[in-house]
Amino acid sequence: MRAAVLGAGSWGTTFAKVLNDAGNDVVLWARRSSVVSAIAATGMNPGYMEGQIGSRVTATTDVFEALRDAELVVLSVPSQTLRSVLGSVGPHLDTDSTVVSLMKGVELGTTLRMSQVIVEVTGVKPDRVAVVTGPNLAPEIAAEQPTATVVACEDIDRAARVQKAVFTPYFRPYTNDDVVGCELGGAVKNVIALAYGMAQAMGMGDNTRASLITRGLAETARLGVALGADPLTFSGLAGLGDLVATCSSPLSRNHTFGEYLGRGMTLEQAQEAAKYTVEGVKSCLSIRDLARAHGVEMPITEQVERVCHEGLDPRVAVRSLMTREVKAE
Amino acid sequence: MRAAVLGAGSWGTTFAKVLNDAGNDVVLWARRSSVVSAIAATGMNPGYMEGQIGSRVTATTDVFEALRDAELVVLSVPSQTLRSVLGSVGPHLDTDSTVVSLMKGVELGTTLRMSQVIVEVTGVKPDRVAVVTGPNLAPEIAAEQPTATVVACEDIDRAARVQKAVFTPYFRPYTNDDVVGCELGGAVKNVIALAYGMAQAMGMGDNTRASLITRGLAETARLGVALGADPLTFSGLAGLGDLVATCSSPLSRNHTFGEYLGRGMTLEQAQEAAKYTVEGVKSCLSIRDLARAHGVEMPITEQVERVCHEGLDPRVAVRSLMTREVKAE
Repeated sequence: MRAAVLGAGSWGTTFAKVLNDAGNDVVLWARRSSVVSAIAATGMNPGYMEGQIGSRVTATTDVFEALRDAELVVLSVPSQTLRSVLGSVGPHLDTDSTVVSLMKGVELGTTLRMSQVIVEVTGVKPDRVAVVTGPNLAPEIAAEQPTATVVACEDIDRAARVQKAVFTPYFRPYTNDDVVGCELGGAVKNVIALAYGMAQAMGMGDNTRASLITRGLAETARLGVALGADPLTFSGLAGLGDLVATCSSPLSRNHTFGEYLGRGMTLEQAQEAAKYTVEGVKSCLSIRDLARAHGVEMPITEQVERVCHEGLDPRVAVRSLMTREVKAE
Repeated sequence: MRAAVLGAGSWGTTFAKVLNDAGNDVVLWARRSSVVSAIAATGMNPGYMEGQIGSRVTATTDVFEALRDAELVVLSVPSQTLRSVLGSVGPHLDTDSTVVSLMKGVELGTTLRMSQVIVEVTGVKPDRVAVVTGPNLAPEIAAEQPTATVVACEDIDRAARVQKAVFTPYFRPYTNDDVVGCELGGAVKNVIALAYGMAQAMGMGDNTRASLITRGLAETARLGVALGADPLTFSGLAGLGDLVATCSSPLSRNHTFGEYLGRGMTLEQAQEAAKYTVEGVKSCLSIRDLARAHGVEMPITEQVERVCHEGLDPRVAVRSLMTREVKAE
């Protein structure tokens, strides 16, 4: 199959390798020409992925060249830039191509999930959009550690085609038709990972942190059910699996960023130390708005938003989460 | 309230401290007189808990002295010894006392849960038995780290009374009426933690390990539902919470034992290195039998049982779990 991957960050580059290893021809679109030259010269994208991307992968800065004849169009750009990246893309999509979202966020202002932004901007039908998500730390996949993932699409036959197109001995996709649940699991987990990182930096033990994961998944599921998701999705790879991997791993950016905040850094200091802004810092605002709009209580998300954007002391936030009124579970 | 705690291991001793700090008078029963003397002389139980147990706690080797006038009878002995410990206890229980189980196992041979063994041997009604479970690593509770827990009882008013009796600023119980689900979550998590420890020792990354937790909880829930549990219990503190804490923590015995096996030790070598037999090694047999009797597929439990008791190479077991046929989730 011919595939385009738009976005040559860590996950986009790694997914290009997976597509390569599964036998597809891949064009990887990068914004910066230095990345394209590096890939052309060395077959690698230093700073984003260790090792060779693969001999079937070429890179370009020309998005239309990348899209030409692509049956799979994989999107892996920062969530809040998706709308502008897609701006001129719509008419260049093949009429039966599948658009695959690797992104995990909720758009600020509109509170749209990434698949909804894709549908709104490009005009493709929702059943042509698939979401790939799960316990998928990119550096481990690049190292060919065995990894399970979820391919979610309203059209389950299309999900099965994507599943087949990305199947490798180390990357094992499962199909799912709950796009809403899978996308929310991925987006909210970044926010919970921030809280987890804060609690860890403050010396909280495994009991406390396991409770945070449990409550975090519970508030994700509450929001999901309000938006029409299947509650069981949150017990699966796209919910629990992704949340546990992100919270456990020192490779997770959101987790690390939360640790910086937990050590007492301001948002600006943490951004400087991390050299990037993590998805959760932005998504906590849009997810909070989405929750409020649907009357859903999300105490962890609320506290993270207050720490990130209102200067609340993380110690106060974590203490307030741990001393909520005791009641039936 | 007056409470008896039978069993002065790590969790029993720590729970005596919690009861003390919540304002109860506690008699702790230990099998060995050296433990009783140490507690009488120093207020501590070295090797089982760091720090003072509390001024309201006394210890005895006389089980009948411990039980006298006890309104709460807390049981914290190794699962497979419960039946013999309870043998002569039944007639000595106060007629309205609550029997609290801290134990996490399934009896070999009978495949009874701990609360069922209690009911069978003592003759107390099931609605007088409560189960305390959750992400409750004893050393963290002894250090007064904030910890959430679950008190499960068929009689929810009784659960609320126990909740009140064990509430402290660092130990926060939630009530639940799903005794079956709470007990199974606690028992099966020891088996999953063995698999997790094996995978960790074999160098598996966070993606793989998060999948193991996800699939482990899924098979626990399948068994639970077959036995009449509420599936939602497994997404809560007694399911997900306990499983994540146990798998994440270097303090978990089952996890550590799994690591020994994953490094290539035989069961005998691991037992020698650990100086104890962990609950999961025995429970994997009884849980497998329970699952087979109810026609429930539990692939992780099956593989752990084969590693522990049939000499299967853990590398073969973990590989076989990661390469099962790919399908819908």
